[in-house]
Amino acid sequence: MSTERIYNFSAGPSMLPLPALEQAAAEMTNYPGSGMSVMEMSHRSKVFIDIFEETKADLRSLMSIPETHEIIFMQGGASLQFSAVPLNLIGKTGKADYAVTGSFSGAATKEAKRYGDIRIACSSEDKNHSYIPAQEDIRISADSSYFYYCSNNTIFGTEWKYVPDTGDVPIVCDMSSNIMSVPVDVSKYGLIFAGAQKNMAPAGMAVVIIDKRLAGNEHPLTPLLMSYKLMIDADSMHNTPPCYTIYMLGLVLKWLEKQGGVEGMAKIKADKAKILYDFLDDNTMFIGHAETSARSDMNVTFRTTSGELDDKFVKEAAKAGFENLKGHRSVGGMRASIYNAMPAEGVQKLTEFMRGFEKENR
Amino acid sequence: MSTERIYNFSAGPSMLPLPALEQAAAEMTNYPGSGMSVMEMSHRSKVFIDIFEETKADLRSLMSIPETHEIIFMQGGASLQFSAVPLNLIGKTGKADYAVTGSFSGAATKEAKRYGDIRIACSSEDKNHSYIPAQEDIRISADSSYFYYCSNNTIFGTEWKYVPDTGDVPIVCDMSSNIMSVPVDVSKYGLIFAGAQKNMAPAGMAVVIIDKRLAGNEHPLTPLLMSYKLMIDADSMHNTPPCYTIYMLGLVLKWLEKQGGVEGMAKIKADKAKILYDFLDDNTMFIGHAETSARSDMNVTFRTTSGELDDKFVKEAAKAGFENLKGHRSVGGMRASIYNAMPAEGVQKLTEFMRGFEKENR
Repeated sequence: MSTERIYNFSAGPSMLPLPALEQAAAEMTNYPGSGMSVMEMSHRSKVFIDIFEETKADLRSLMSIPETHEIIFMQGGASLQFSAVPLNLIGKTGKADYAVTGSFSGAATKEAKRYGDIRIACSSEDKNHSYIPAQEDIRISADSSYFYYCSNNTIFGTEWKYVPDTGDVPIVCDMSSNIMSVPVDVSKYGLIFAGAQKNMAPAGMAVVIIDKRLAGNEHPLTPLLMSYKLMIDADSMHNTPPCYTIYMLGLVLKWLEKQGGVEGMAKIKADKAKILYDFLDDNTMFIGHAETSARSDMNVTFRTTSGELDDKFVKEAAKAGFENLKGHRSVGGMRASIYNAMPAEGVQKLTEFMRGFEKENR
Repeated sequence: MSTERIYNFSAGPSMLPLPALEQAAAEMTNYPGSGMSVMEMSHRSKVFIDIFEETKADLRSLMSIPETHEIIFMQGGASLQFSAVPLNLIGKTGKADYAVTGSFSGAATKEAKRYGDIRIACSSEDKNHSYIPAQEDIRISADSSYFYYCSNNTIFGTEWKYVPDTGDVPIVCDMSSNIMSVPVDVSKYGLIFAGAQKNMAPAGMAVVIIDKRLAGNEHPLTPLLMSYKLMIDADSMHNTPPCYTIYMLGLVLKWLEKQGGVEGMAKIKADKAKILYDFLDDNTMFIGHAETSARSDMNVTFRTTSGELDDKFVKEAAKAGFENLKGHRSVGGMRASIYNAMPAEGVQKLTEFMRGFEKENR
């Protein structure tokens, strides 16, 4: 059973930095100086509070989060935020505008409709979400409580390259699949959230970064633990937070610092994605799904010339140590998710494998 | 920094079985045969589904869960269930009866009042929750959607020694702090839930065991991911579940099997608690909080003859390697939480330490 670590192109949960995993393993039964595992620590103990505060401080520093915004850790992943966002924010006017550019923004829209009047600000559904609408094609009304979009579409492999201008309407953004891969000006956002299991930590948590002025107007039936106001006031500790996931996030952030922070990562990930996109552009067997201008640097979607060949590719790639390359059924073909923790070497080797596959199968 | 592992009497998160932690450490960077950490696995991958199914099967077997009941894994801990229970179940009649025997059942009652007509079936508040009401003192109406109680009161150190007779009214029980420490007849319950971080796994999950016939009547504004019906239909995988916490639960369950299952654990924990309670009974300096008939085998609450002496005890105990013995502010004094993973040796040594402390300070 001594398999070596493989290149895991899963869309999430996905690869984590090896040094973070190694440190977690080394500290599993006894966190330095504590005599216990981080899993066993009271969330109110000094030793855990130190981990918690350092993780928050590192996140604030790495993302340059201004003091106007609070960081909260919530359970339920990004999907529970699909409910939490309207429950907390739509009360202002009862209305909100949603950009539908993929599967998850579609699901968020559907969920929000249960809580208010949701207008579709723009949609890329006409071309199976292969592009990102331009600013001039987004309809935002001044009476919106907020404008919602998803900055990277994991399934379709597209990514917003600009922050929409919404006037005075606060922007809510699901950054689950590209957070901390590129610098963002947090002050432009009313609320950012991200499920942890792509660029941050294992599954089981959403990081929410919220302009404190937006909190406190939740629907009267909002479950207590879904109130942003409560979570801010309790510093994410009204009940026991997902302590170990927060600790893992802390280890990943230390690794990210060593990569030059988010700025350093932005360069690394652009170089990585370029290897794969350059290959797609130079090649006749593999065809990208996303329009060139909307290509995601996190999820690269492509197919071959036939479904049979796609299946063959996925199988042979797995045998060669490139796992989880099958695309989502709504796009078909393949998807290589190359989040922050995927080493450049993995992308390089995948490209070489694709080149070989093309030679053998053309 | 080579501290040895200490005896951690934390009320939760709390001690986990060392063999489970050691296996997690050994498999952290590479789960056997997978080439990746469990943290990195797609929740839809065969390797993770195998872990998931085995964990569910082990839990079903260990708790003898009948086929009428489904196991679901939810995020948000026990506290989110305080909202989920009324959101999903109170619709039947709009009314429910709650037993208030401690802090968490009190919090659950307060939260439920936001969703329906909540009647107090019984309360132990008159004696600072030092006892458990008798069957004849519980008022349950036939028009109740459900009767709610918390089987073990972590803060006050009391435990229900019987399952209330509620006629045809379904029973909902928060078993967070004594689940799998004693066999229960699951068929008597409409719904059992437990936050993972005491007897099961690290924090970040609630295990819900629900009679399938109760699901499907949720309030129209129930957040999608809080619908028991949806969670049953999606087998806890509508979105990414807390995969690593489920894996840890699996490791803890394997350890529990080796202790003779829940039946074996019931004997072990009774013997452990007896050591401490016998000492309290034979002693004049340390005084128990809970009435003898209601004593919890999981959380032993006690104090000395003065607040100053309590403080001194907690400090000296910590120095001697007995951590987190300070009682909750609503009871004062001390609390020794001796969950399933606390070795008998830890309780024995604590008792010896108490004996020595008494000699030195009397």
